Amino acid sequence: MRNPHLLGISGSLRRDSFSTAILRTLREELSPGVDLVLHPLDEVPLYNQDLDTQTPPQGVRRLRAAIAESDGLVIVSPEFNYGIPGVLKNTLDWASRPYGTSALIGKPVLTMTASPAFTGGVRAQAQLNETLLATQSRLVIRPQTVIGSVHEKIVDGRLIDPASLQFALQAVSGLLREAGLAEQLERAA
Amino acid sequence: MRNPHLLGISGSLRRDSFSTAILRTLREELSPGVDLVLHPLDEVPLYNQDLDTQTPPQGVRRLRAAIAESDGLVIVSPEFNYGIPGVLKNTLDWASRPYGTSALIGKPVLTMTASPAFTGGVRAQAQLNETLLATQSRLVIRPQTVIGSVHEKIVDGRLIDPASLQFALQAVSGLLREAGLAEQLERAA
Amino acid sequence: MRNPHLLGISGSLRRDSFSTAILRTLREELSPGVDLVLHPLDEVPLYNQDLDTQTPPQGVRRLRAAIAESDGLVIVSPEFNYGIPGVLKNTLDWASRPYGTSALIGKPVLTMTASPAFTGGVRAQAQLNETLLATQSRLVIRPQTVIGSVHEKIVDGRLIDPASLQFALQAVSGLLREAGLAEQLERAA
Amino acid sequence: MRNPHLLGISGSLRRDSFSTAILRTLREELSPGVDLVLHPLDEVPLYNQDLDTQTPPQGVRRLRAAIAESDGLVIVSPEFNYGIPGVLKNTLDWASRPYGTSALIGKPVLTMTASPAFTGGVRAQAQLNETLLATQSRLVIRPQTVIGSVHEKIVDGRLIDPASLQFALQAVSGLLREAGLAEQLERAA
Repeated sequence: MRNPHLLGISGSLRRDSFSTAILRTLREELSPGVDLVLHPLDEVPLYNQDLDTQTPPQGVRRLRAAIAESDGLVIVSPEFNYGIPGVLKNTLDWASRPYGTSALIGKPVLTMTASPAFTGGVRAQAQLNETLLATQSRLVIRPQTVIGSVHEKIVDGRLIDPASLQFALQAVSGLLREAGLAEQLERAA
Repeated sequence: MRNPHLLGISGSLRRDSFSTAILRTLREELSPGVDLVLHPLDEVPLYNQDLDTQTPPQGVRRLRAAIAESDGLVIVSPEFNYGIPGVLKNTLDWASRPYGTSALIGKPVLTMTASPAFTGGVRAQAQLNETLLATQSRLVIRPQTVIGSVHEKIVDGRLIDPASLQFALQAVSGLLREAGLAEQLERAA
Repeated sequence: MRNPHLLGISGSLRRDSFSTAILRTLREELSPGVDLVLHPLDEVPLYNQDLDTQTPPQGVRRLRAAIAESDGLVIVSPEFNYGIPGVLKNTLDWASRPYGTSALIGKPVLTMTASPAFTGGVRAQAQLNETLLATQSRLVIRPQTVIGSVHEKIVDGRLIDPASLQFALQAVSGLLREAGLAEQLERAA
Repeated sequence: MRNPHLLGISGSLRRDSFSTAILRTLREELSPGVDLVLHPLDEVPLYNQDLDTQTPPQGVRRLRAAIAESDGLVIVSPEFNYGIPGVLKNTLDWASRPYGTSALIGKPVLTMTASPAFTGGVRAQAQLNETLLATQSRLVIRPQTVIGSVHEKIVDGRLIDPASLQFALQAVSGLLREAGLAEQLERAA
């Protein structure tokens, strides 16, 4: 029996992205039995239906395979212009295809947002939820993880705010439960 | 005095895109005194703040200049996953910068959506409006232009449905009014 | 073992409401083993936190009890001003309390919208989904039931359009599955 | 020439509502030449199209008249369940009628949200904007007024946080400009 295997997606391509730093911190802090692999979005091209054929671009094939092989997704994103970053929406647009058989259908997904603004990116999370309902993914239902003033909570690329980290880890546990893997973890413990 | 100069943005990169076809039809049907130039989105890269410097990528410089020089924007878009296509949001994310001095601030913008679905992409238009309020653009306030079952209304790359075309042209007149150019047009007539 | 017991909520108070007519039609067309009871919203007052005490208004007590006793909710609503009717949001605001222990937490909920407009109320459904994620209800994940041009599909207070009715009934089956009751129904058959 | 006359609408009926307190503070702090009158929402009944006749309920007649006579609206609201309070949406649903001739068409409107949560009610403001675009009102376009942790910023029914108050007053100036009244004020000064 393999370890639970989660796929991490950051809504920002910035090298020192706060969202990416949160995913890296979670990867380190999760129980030893849980894998979290970050998937880079910069290899996913702009969506163009003319390229969305039986042989899509390599970055798209990799993205879809990574989602299909995962037990669940952890998406952490900033907010751009009161909403979801175009880069992240573009990735989900590719992932949502082919219509009716995409890897996102029924996939458990946990969303988090983080922002230097005090509002913490909640509007991005609202749009992200709209998108994931459209893709028929299984949203983890719990109080949202929203990290405001994130620039004060990340030092040297790690989320150091104990309350935020604890809440985010509980959210990942919620994802494992939604994926039917919590019991397996307990048996392993 | 130069002609009113509008910039057309299509939310789809597909070669035979319905949204692009609508923009092309409008370009032909507008009064002779009004220019509508389509701006291609495929030269705008994925947003990455590390590249958003004093010398951004060439496609971004062109985009920002084209917006700045225009009297107003006409955005026509499909709906992807109940929302704005990532490609279009990505373009607006680039255009919305630099924060506080972007070319979108105060720019009159008209939005339309079109979709083969009967719902006509209204949810994409809702997210588009959210984005354009964030960028402090001036939305044209009137009943929305929403074209459902668009695949039945476009033939040989032209919008042939008279009611849809008429409504869309009235919407462009609304944009010219919002841009303070309607009077100029009448004087010229 | 009692029958599956669903609570129907119409977003419109109008006597000849299309949304209410759809709920009545579903009530008649559901398998004999499934109960669907319509709950009237006109006895739920305007939300006022000063009245949201240990002894809230009678209409609120009844609403909360009806939700708590049900196996799942079927909400059918029109769209007002691109969104959820205030009357329906007001009902959900009352139902969402007390915070942390409300009857909506974990409750399976199916949403549908219907409108004389061709867009079928999808924006109301989007806002309704946002609300139900906030209340931590369990949304039924499937292609949305959206009935446009509903005035042509309802005759003498009954939904007579076969495709719409069939799709709506399948959606209710999805709700029963989400509520863990589908198997029970099959055993009973 | 009469004073600029603004109508204040609070999204909460609670007697000690933070939103209402903000409106009262603004009323006191505005230039002597500007009137701000608060309109109570508790006399507006639940929307029912059967009552939306030539002779609607008295509370509705008063609401519509107050909006029609005002130079602009100042709406301050909390957030309920990630969105606009049902009570406020219900009021706007009544105010948006009759379709095509409602008092909200073209009316300048300023929106603000306030919440004890750190997120300050931004999602309510997003839904409020969606509603006001549907009613074809003229939204004041500027950085949003969003007051988080509002319970720490109101003492004895007054907004005492200087930064929040200053920002809110600037927003009201923006409303007067949108209403074409700023110049009149300066002439009067």
